[in-house]
Amino acid sequence: MSKNDKLLIIPLGGLGEIGKNMTVFRYGDDIIILDSGLAFPEEDMLGIDLVIPDISYIIENKDKIRAVVLTHGHEDHIGSLFYLLRHIDVPVYGSRLTLGLVEGRLKEYDVSTTKLIPVAPGDSITLGAFEVGFIRVNHSIADALGIYLKTPVGTVVHTGDFKIDQTPVDGKMIDIHKFAELGNQGVLVLLSDSTNAERPGYTKSERTVTVSLDEHFRTARGRIILTTFASNVSRLQQAINAACNYGRKVALLGRSMVTVVNKANELGYMDIPEGVLIGVDEISRYPDNQMLILTTGSQGEPMAALSRLASKSHRSLQLTPGDTVLIAANPIPGNERSVGRTIDALMRSGVHVVYERASGIHVSGHASQEELKLILNLVSPKYLIPVHGEHRMLRQHGKLAQETGIPKENVFIGENGHVFEFTADTGRFAGKVTAGKIFVDGLGVGDVGNIVIRDRRQLSQDGVLIVVVTLDKSRGCVLDGPDIVSRGFVYVRDSEGLIDESRTIVKNVLERFENQPVTEWAPLKNGIREALSKYLFAKTGRRPMILPIIMDL
Amino acid sequence: MSKNDKLLIIPLGGLGEIGKNMTVFRYGDDIIILDSGLAFPEEDMLGIDLVIPDISYIIENKDKIRAVVLTHGHEDHIGSLFYLLRHIDVPVYGSRLTLGLVEGRLKEYDVSTTKLIPVAPGDSITLGAFEVGFIRVNHSIADALGIYLKTPVGTVVHTGDFKIDQTPVDGKMIDIHKFAELGNQGVLVLLSDSTNAERPGYTKSERTVTVSLDEHFRTARGRIILTTFASNVSRLQQAINAACNYGRKVALLGRSMVTVVNKANELGYMDIPEGVLIGVDEISRYPDNQMLILTTGSQGEPMAALSRLASKSHRSLQLTPGDTVLIAANPIPGNERSVGRTIDALMRSGVHVVYERASGIHVSGHASQEELKLILNLVSPKYLIPVHGEHRMLRQHGKLAQETGIPKENVFIGENGHVFEFTADTGRFAGKVTAGKIFVDGLGVGDVGNIVIRDRRQLSQDGVLIVVVTLDKSRGCVLDGPDIVSRGFVYVRDSEGLIDESRTIVKNVLERFENQPVTEWAPLKNGIREALSKYLFAKTGRRPMILPIIMDL
Repeated sequence: MSKNDKLLIIPLGGLGEIGKNMTVFRYGDDIIILDSGLAFPEEDMLGIDLVIPDISYIIENKDKIRAVVLTHGHEDHIGSLFYLLRHIDVPVYGSRLTLGLVEGRLKEYDVSTTKLIPVAPGDSITLGAFEVGFIRVNHSIADALGIYLKTPVGTVVHTGDFKIDQTPVDGKMIDIHKFAELGNQGVLVLLSDSTNAERPGYTKSERTVTVSLDEHFRTARGRIILTTFASNVSRLQQAINAACNYGRKVALLGRSMVTVVNKANELGYMDIPEGVLIGVDEISRYPDNQMLILTTGSQGEPMAALSRLASKSHRSLQLTPGDTVLIAANPIPGNERSVGRTIDALMRSGVHVVYERASGIHVSGHASQEELKLILNLVSPKYLIPVHGEHRMLRQHGKLAQETGIPKENVFIGENGHVFEFTADTGRFAGKVTAGKIFVDGLGVGDVGNIVIRDRRQLSQDGVLIVVVTLDKSRGCVLDGPDIVSRGFVYVRDSEGLIDESRTIVKNVLERFENQPVTEWAPLKNGIREALSKYLFAKTGRRPMILPIIMDL
Repeated sequence: MSKNDKLLIIPLGGLGEIGKNMTVFRYGDDIIILDSGLAFPEEDMLGIDLVIPDISYIIENKDKIRAVVLTHGHEDHIGSLFYLLRHIDVPVYGSRLTLGLVEGRLKEYDVSTTKLIPVAPGDSITLGAFEVGFIRVNHSIADALGIYLKTPVGTVVHTGDFKIDQTPVDGKMIDIHKFAELGNQGVLVLLSDSTNAERPGYTKSERTVTVSLDEHFRTARGRIILTTFASNVSRLQQAINAACNYGRKVALLGRSMVTVVNKANELGYMDIPEGVLIGVDEISRYPDNQMLILTTGSQGEPMAALSRLASKSHRSLQLTPGDTVLIAANPIPGNERSVGRTIDALMRSGVHVVYERASGIHVSGHASQEELKLILNLVSPKYLIPVHGEHRMLRQHGKLAQETGIPKENVFIGENGHVFEFTADTGRFAGKVTAGKIFVDGLGVGDVGNIVIRDRRQLSQDGVLIVVVTLDKSRGCVLDGPDIVSRGFVYVRDSEGLIDESRTIVKNVLERFENQPVTEWAPLKNGIREALSKYLFAKTGRRPMILPIIMDL
């Protein structure tokens, strides 16, 4: 180890946001990438399907990458691997369930890699200058891992997404002994999940859901439809257990539900007795009080199965009064309205809907304040970098750390792209690297930028109005048009006067330019745009995008 | 009274939704309209500014309308008056503050009426077959009223928006004695606010805010910026009181903040000592710890003052580290993300932000479950129509009513446009009238319908691609083009190959139609649209709106 060698920790995603988690650890010429997630677009990112991290820094240093390490199989941790692996060819480490889910996702994108290497809690591997160890944690997906990194300057601990479930459904509690042991040995830096840093107290155990589910299964008379995140294998297992207890068959609705349950079952993460699972086409063969249907759509996503059931547009199933829908998930911020609409639509068709927080059929997968403090105290790191959260959550996490005795100057509230540099004794902010959002739209990655989004925004507000004129270029005289076509602006049948008048306005502009050979179109186009824009705003209070198109002969 | 005469209650807005409250009461040839509100557009109503109720029923019966009665001055109760009064010319009754706010709004829309008639709690007036009485209620705006209607078939009570504040800031508690008295005399139908029907317990008193505010004013070192709804006159008064206690001047930021405070002050609903209010341009003359700034933007609205402060784009004020922002409002569902972004942006610039529910600087203006039950018990109506709420809230309110002893069949969970018909003994659902949403977009009311919105949605997702060709109509041969223009689809500079290939595809289609006189354009246009759509989806995974425009000579 050279005296000048330093550990760099560079978050490329997950700071100041929920989603697209990705952290780079670098020591000398060795780089490890932890997680490669995606984020879902915010409401102003029109038409965008997914958002992934800008990986310029990784591409610039591709010869130094030793591995990608994954903490668990949620999209916000594995969802941009398909893109990362187009640029780098390195081994990918993760738990068996995580890699099972990765495999499925990569196949969808036609990305293949033979370097998926399963690891288990307790394992440790050497990757360049790093020794990477894996620690079991509890989360809303099975087989979730935290990691520790032994580096020449000290030990780093990253919790991944976690909670402390003292009575987990699968009996596999977070390895708090390992966190304690690492703490005893001395930890330089802790990176810890901030998602619930604003929530006081403890997050409830997944097992508390058992009791509530049992109650709803006991009293339901018709079919039960339960919706949750497909990745929440424990929750699905609990629902299936309840179904078995009350003699119900189980059908799976929605592509991701089928994929995840099959994968988890195949890998031994679920225990589904023979003959319990039936096909959706077999539902009608069983009495209503012998059916449980597990479905996607807990966030009110318009195309997901639950929304289709609510709007009576599902092709193979129709709900009826007497059915009970259990919504075993809370709306993610931003989704409240769509979830509310789905609930209302279900209720209107007479379905009994159980959805409130008080119903007890959902608990969070992230640690609340008391758990965060417990981890801080167990690990007792010299430095904390709060990760996975909006800026205010990172701050709140920082405050908790100060309460546990970490000095304010040792808490680093960062942004994506910030470089934190550590020696055995010191830690500091050491500049920035490129970081940001890459938009995925359809098949395109990164080809939609701010200009396209800005145009979509204008189009979405007031539509478009197209003016086409055919000119004789040499003489500047009009051969045909102006023709006017609009979309998303006004209902044309009711607005003939407006369109006629617009045509007159364009003609007036054209007259100003007439009988002089046109050398460039810009002044004419600008003239049309300005005159029309002024007129249309005065008449309608709207500002459609105006596109003058000039054909010349 | 003829034996056949019946009381009809027809909600035209506010059922199955939050907003655009409007209820019609009809007895024989007498109609009263209670409230005329607006709703804010949902996220899929692209480009829409406001949503107002469909008033076809009112227009059809305009000769029967005796009056519009207003419960209070919030937009969701007065915001569509400007439109209603374009169609009917009747007196408008409301409390003084309500009418003061109405006057301002009508002026903005160039609607004038001389028939604004102030009423006070305790007043009653005769309007056709109805005796209308006014009852003081507590709400997050001063001078809010509930009403009772004495009709030939019995008494109807409508709470308006309300809570039961036992220690109101202005000392004017809801008139629970009047509700009790009406209950004793016998009430046929109660219509009651369902906004908080899902919340257990009691809503806290506005006075609890005093203590919390005092604490924040005591500890703040720099300027204090407080944001809340401009209409929340009590909250603003409390902030001003705190400012006076701690020797701070008060400046108002944001148009609606200035309007409402001035109006409320002028009408005597606020008590602002001489010399406390200063102009925004005078802020710099006072030390930071002598300033309170009241501002709009508590919902993270991008154009409001607080968002501009957060993004450092406000033209007359810049926040600095040391300033404290108090967000004395909770995000309305759907606004969580934008509020979160505003908070994060403020924190990033070093401003101290107080925002959590636990901070105690905000309480709701609507009654929670215990209060709803208290009103149900005091009024003890034969029938209940839960109003003002999404469908699930109306249902929950209905459940509460059943708990207080109202039979299930006497609780009417309705939709906008439902007609509820009452005699002295009976109540029933009696059909439907036209009801719905009218979109206001710029200056247009109702000219934007589903087709326009659908187009905007498509444009917002993948943009537009326009193909222009000039043809010789008689021979079908191409004189110029095809030219291709796109917006919001791809970044054109990076997509020349795609556009070139699109042009080739259009040419191929044109060749199929060549050398035959074209009688109609539809087959050619469809051919272009289909071929391009298929190609572009295969290449990009996107479906832009494709607009073929054919010019002919």
